Amino acid sequence: MYDDLITRLTAGDRRALARMVSLIENGAPGSQEALARLHALGGHAHIIGVTGSPGAGKSTLVMQLVRELRRRAARVAIIAVDPTSPFTGGAILGDRIRMQDIGGDPNVYIRSMASRGSVGGLSSATRDAVRVLDAAAFDHIIIETVGAGQAEVEIVRAAQSIVVVTVPGMGDDIQALKAGILEIADCFCVNKADRPGADGAVAELRMLLSLDTGRDKAAWKPPIVKTIAATGEGVPALADALANHIAFLRASGQLVERGERQARSEILALLYQALLARVDATIGPDRFAAVVREVAARENDPYSAARAMEQQLGL
Amino acid sequence: MYDDLITRLTAGDRRALARMVSLIENGAPGSQEALARLHALGGHAHIIGVTGSPGAGKSTLVMQLVRELRRRAARVAIIAVDPTSPFTGGAILGDRIRMQDIGGDPNVYIRSMASRGSVGGLSSATRDAVRVLDAAAFDHIIIETVGAGQAEVEIVRAAQSIVVVTVPGMGDDIQALKAGILEIADCFCVNKADRPGADGAVAELRMLLSLDTGRDKAAWKPPIVKTIAATGEGVPALADALANHIAFLRASGQLVERGERQARSEILALLYQALLARVDATIGPDRFAAVVREVAARENDPYSAARAMEQQLGL
Repeated sequence: MYDDLITRLTAGDRRALARMVSLIENGAPGSQEALARLHALGGHAHIIGVTGSPGAGKSTLVMQLVRELRRRAARVAIIAVDPTSPFTGGAILGDRIRMQDIGGDPNVYIRSMASRGSVGGLSSATRDAVRVLDAAAFDHIIIETVGAGQAEVEIVRAAQSIVVVTVPGMGDDIQALKAGILEIADCFCVNKADRPGADGAVAELRMLLSLDTGRDKAAWKPPIVKTIAATGEGVPALADALANHIAFLRASGQLVERGERQARSEILALLYQALLARVDATIGPDRFAAVVREVAARENDPYSAARAMEQQLGL
Repeated sequence: MYDDLITRLTAGDRRALARMVSLIENGAPGSQEALARLHALGGHAHIIGVTGSPGAGKSTLVMQLVRELRRRAARVAIIAVDPTSPFTGGAILGDRIRMQDIGGDPNVYIRSMASRGSVGGLSSATRDAVRVLDAAAFDHIIIETVGAGQAEVEIVRAAQSIVVVTVPGMGDDIQALKAGILEIADCFCVNKADRPGADGAVAELRMLLSLDTGRDKAAWKPPIVKTIAATGEGVPALADALANHIAFLRASGQLVERGERQARSEILALLYQALLARVDATIGPDRFAAVVREVAARENDPYSAARAMEQQLGL
């Protein structure tokens, strides 16, 4: 079954693609072996992450970016990720609106992913979806997050180029951007740039960037692009900035570095899953729960409890 | 050395307390054994987490809450946590201001903690600090975060009662609250309630709570308290709400459940640390890096790479 699906999806068959994504999302038997084979076939797509405050107009911006990339004759896939509580439903609504607009294009593929209970689970599901789409020969894969919390930051780390979207007049939000999101931006986008304060927002970002001593000054300097997603203004400049960034990563060798960082974190996540399975098999859920109760009741302490388990596990 | 320090800090000696916190922060030899002993001595403090958007006035609010708890004759410790990039410096500035106001009181202890490079590291350092302060017989330990990202959410999970602070007129921020922070709130605080829109913010929170189908309706219903931290108005009501919440947790058995959830996550974090040490010892950093390079170059895939390592580790 997988042989046939892989052959068809790499040839551009959308039904095979959708079926493969579903099988992998559901962890169907043999899906990990299929992912291993898909991994070997990928590595060609430009993976773009888009994050930023709710209300910054990310969905519309992504739709316009897709249109611009389509004009440049590229095939584009979007993964819309919503790690927030299941009751928001934001991703699904946004997708419906977009489907009407760009969903009929056979060279555009949209998939939304909702919370898996854990950030780790959603990150790994996103990585898997990227792997399938990359093998399916999309030129660009856009990972779009609904919010801009730490979960979203972790999820967009799977991208090669990260766009952080903000809007004029969100002073407190630019403060909030400092909380981990400033550092990951490869490109800033000040959207709704026809609103008052757009130049102020650009100036503030420039100032914050100049304070970010963690960045290597000789390396990539994140451009700040002003866009009006509603009309598409500035979107070609954003597409250019992204093209420049991936060219920079390739030329500087940093694309390889990023790929290695992602491979490292993925292998460690898989080892952690194996550890949990081993705990389940060797110590067992009942004994583990009993130890947890002892620690909570202060009859035991977490350090001694962990050490005893490590010995039992042969760690 | 630790025997003497533990005896002195449980008797209320502040110098012994400060020295113990430093030894543990620096991971001094024997500090984990000391933590194990301190764990057995704790379990009496009410651990309160305070999080919310930057600019919501959390520092002033916490200062007023400390004053109110002091009026009620309690001993109070504050851990101010800043998981953002090292260049913000917010926590330190806030502490200086507070030290002038409440720092002279021998029954108040303030400690700030900055980024450790990883959220996990900061969470575990915060838990360790709570453990020391709990053994040092503080009645309340307040964990205050600078921002309200996913990192902060993870950090305040070490608390028993979580206060989420917002202010009127931050419409987009209330939207952002949905991203993981609404679910963890045991009490909402609409601060700067003398600003226009305070009642609207209360109504919006009430509406969002009614949509939160994840909550057990028969269980705790988070109160929404209006405060003006600048004048202290509403702060006694906040202190009452927190007292009600801990009483509810005790009566319902949920305090034990929370303690067990925390013990579980702490034991798993320690096991993961042991796994990383084992990877280092058995596979070695050079071989691990070589495998990472192969996966990034698509000569190998992450699933096969992880499986081979699991076998080598005996997992």
